[in-house]
Amino acid sequence: MTASDFDSASPAPAGESNTDCHAASGPMEVGDEVRWKPASTGLEFPAVPFPSRRVFEVAGASLLRALVRRHHQRLLNTPIGHLFPKDPARFAAGVEKTADFIVEATGGPALFTANHGHTCMRSRHFPFTIDELAREIWLAQLLSAFDDVGFPDEVREEYWNWVESLSIRVINRRTMRAAPRRIPLAGAATELADALALQRRVAAVAV
Amino acid sequence: MTASDFDSASPAPAGESNTDCHAASGPMEVGDEVRWKPASTGLEFPAVPFPSRRVFEVAGASLLRALVRRHHQRLLNTPIGHLFPKDPARFAAGVEKTADFIVEATGGPALFTANHGHTCMRSRHFPFTIDELAREIWLAQLLSAFDDVGFPDEVREEYWNWVESLSIRVINRRTMRAAPRRIPLAGAATELADALALQRRVAAVAV
Repeated sequence: MTASDFDSASPAPAGESNTDCHAASGPMEVGDEVRWKPASTGLEFPAVPFPSRRVFEVAGASLLRALVRRHHQRLLNTPIGHLFPKDPARFAAGVEKTADFIVEATGGPALFTANHGHTCMRSRHFPFTIDELAREIWLAQLLSAFDDVGFPDEVREEYWNWVESLSIRVINRRTMRAAPRRIPLAGAATELADALALQRRVAAVAV
Repeated sequence: MTASDFDSASPAPAGESNTDCHAASGPMEVGDEVRWKPASTGLEFPAVPFPSRRVFEVAGASLLRALVRRHHQRLLNTPIGHLFPKDPARFAAGVEKTADFIVEATGGPALFTANHGHTCMRSRHFPFTIDELAREIWLAQLLSAFDDVGFPDEVREEYWNWVESLSIRVINRRTMRAAPRRIPLAGAATELADALALQRRVAAVAV
């Protein structure tokens, strides 16, 4: 309750949407008795529609692996590229491990659990700082990777609905009160334009 | 859903308590239909008992301000000391601003809202990375500051119960699935021993 008071110039985070914080301010209410502010929820994880084996049957192992590889090639050149190993061999090994997960989760051979055990998605990501924008950058690159590899239209939505909702459970750094945005595949490119624009600005600065 | 897969050596965070993640692992279940994992809650904010004006009536403005000053002097020498300004004048100004908040919230003059508007506790802290351990370090130093300044025993629990619960709402970086610990004043020193021990280890390394 002190740190931010040290910098009244701290900008309200983009997307800040807690009306309490914009309410006309008066003195704090204090009474003769302790006043209870009710419990509330800081973060809600939406339901996640895990894919049917139809995704693997339609896309196949090689295209699913190509999607994961292309997605990660793209992520390297984004503001979250630092989350991945700089060493090419370690990076490639991580990509294949992720591809094992995707293949198994969509109905293919159980390569991931056989080699790595429970997916443990949220816990595995705790060592990495992942905020709401990082999630949108990740999703924006997946959207582009769909086109890059020609991922089958008939299973894009089933795949997207899974990872779009699952990705909310990987966020571990909050920067705004607003709940993480829901981003349906229809209109995702427009919804994610801000995340893509930020990447372009960062890239321009890096040049 | 990829970052942590790049480092299978990532240790499970201390306090990790999600039994799902320790369950005996088998292949992921995949069926002919989409399978819904139900919604859940990522973080719950407990109810907060805001203090009555009794705290101000008993402790008084000067002792409340002394508590805030001593608390922050202590925080400077902890692993969260970097959250505060290095410039002594800015640091002192931040301490007095925080003291204004404490005085008003406990029943004294409305100095904080008059000068700074709504407290906006969670949002003001978003620019600063505050995890579960940072909260415990903050609480541990408050506990010591109570003794340092001779804060009146008869209002310590009312004051503590307020900030112990409120501090959960300031956490913006999660490092474990386990809910932030509740730490009643009775037994707080023991409960917070780990946070204090970490500070000593960090201090030893810094020497």
